[in-house]
Amino acid sequence: MNHPLTVAIQGERASYHDIAAQKYFHQTVSVLECRTFKQVCRGVLERRADVAVLAIENTLAGSILPNYSLLESHPLFIEGEIYVAIHQCLMALPGQTLGDIRMVRSHPMALHQCSEFLEAHPALRAMEAFDTAGSAREIQKQKLPGVAAIASEEAARRYELAILAREIENQRQNYTRFLIISQRPPELRDSTNKASLSFQTAHRPGALVEVLDIFRQHGINLTLIQSVPIPGRPTEYAFHVDITWREPQAFRKAIQGVQKLAAGFKLLGIYQAGELPYDHS
Amino acid sequence: MNHPLTVAIQGERASYHDIAAQKYFHQTVSVLECRTFKQVCRGVLERRADVAVLAIENTLAGSILPNYSLLESHPLFIEGEIYVAIHQCLMALPGQTLGDIRMVRSHPMALHQCSEFLEAHPALRAMEAFDTAGSAREIQKQKLPGVAAIASEEAARRYELAILAREIENQRQNYTRFLIISQRPPELRDSTNKASLSFQTAHRPGALVEVLDIFRQHGINLTLIQSVPIPGRPTEYAFHVDITWREPQAFRKAIQGVQKLAAGFKLLGIYQAGELPYDHS
Repeated sequence: MNHPLTVAIQGERASYHDIAAQKYFHQTVSVLECRTFKQVCRGVLERRADVAVLAIENTLAGSILPNYSLLESHPLFIEGEIYVAIHQCLMALPGQTLGDIRMVRSHPMALHQCSEFLEAHPALRAMEAFDTAGSAREIQKQKLPGVAAIASEEAARRYELAILAREIENQRQNYTRFLIISQRPPELRDSTNKASLSFQTAHRPGALVEVLDIFRQHGINLTLIQSVPIPGRPTEYAFHVDITWREPQAFRKAIQGVQKLAAGFKLLGIYQAGELPYDHS
Repeated sequence: MNHPLTVAIQGERASYHDIAAQKYFHQTVSVLECRTFKQVCRGVLERRADVAVLAIENTLAGSILPNYSLLESHPLFIEGEIYVAIHQCLMALPGQTLGDIRMVRSHPMALHQCSEFLEAHPALRAMEAFDTAGSAREIQKQKLPGVAAIASEEAARRYELAILAREIENQRQNYTRFLIISQRPPELRDSTNKASLSFQTAHRPGALVEVLDIFRQHGINLTLIQSVPIPGRPTEYAFHVDITWREPQAFRKAIQGVQKLAAGFKLLGIYQAGELPYDHS
């Protein structure tokens, strides 16, 4: 490619989506900033971006089901994943102290992750905003005294804000799993060892076990399983499943078996499994 | 009981939690209004409320994992469930028209459920608030022109607001599952046919199938399954599972088998399965 890769993200530069994109691609990427996840997907579908980075799962909140729906309802596929440790900082204009702060702005999820810090500081009023980094940018742009943002260390650096408190998230083991999304259909390669799929089964005892038993027979590991009720069809259930394997041939055979047994089978992507962030660097 | 039942809810009178409480108990209940789910649980633990109503799952957002964590970390148990169809209305001061409205206030989840309506009306700026009904109350109390709330029909009635648009949720099949929570330990009765449990398995092929196969052997149906990663312990997985049965004896035997096989087994509650709301009345 002659042009730098363009990555659609929800949020702005120095948001956690941006951090995930920089970490995953190990290179300078051009970023398409979007307000909503739907706009992120549209960016790729309309070829304004080559790929998108999409949060799909968080330690605290679990799966982000609306993003699964976006994937399932568009010709978009998962081509990679990355886990990012989320460490929230409280930041304000240089010179401000914690005692000066009256209002804290951030993305609802970030406020939620820091609920214990906020409860311990009742003088701080939480205000929801559409982005972590965007909240930091606004404080600098509008020179807002008395207002702090909850965002990444990168956001403090980018918008020249002073960090008043670090690692204010309730749980230090706090990470988000991001998917790399594009229009390229899934392809099994030697380097790929993980897949995401969805399927439906009849709502009767044993229907799910029969499908999962195919994975067991081929030595395939489950890393995620989640039932999703199908509104208006109470006798059927849909499942999201992530699997990992050592032998590509085992994956191929298992998938053939599952396709025969389960209705509405969809392969959402084949990719290389990301590593969980163990340390906090 | 001589005093009316006191029910802790997140939000205010005419919120969806309040509607769930009224529907479940078919009687006049006294309500303890709480700002957060944690405060709801504390209300029951400190005996300021007899029971609590706790949202656990929504068609759009999926499981509310932080509420599972609250259940698992306190001596609280599920003693019932109810599914409530969620139909959102846009409401404002009487005399206002849709063209007058500039800002829409509601709970983040309600705004999310109505994202397509909001996208189709770009003149409306969404503003997140802590409650649906609370947003309606504030508009009446402060006599706010130009501001609308997204809330239930009951909230419009209670706070004497005019409904500008009905059923503005993206998906008509929109429901939330609420749990009835108390300090009473679970008890198997003839009227109970559903249980919620959590357990852990080794992270290897087949470990989950072995557990689920016990349910199959006893003719027990799964209505929900969800893997939950255990932060800092990447080789283990926890699962939330809901099961239903016809024969109490089958449940008893299956549970004995699962307890032998899976670590960290917890019985979160035994109760009567609620019915999905099919109609929109």
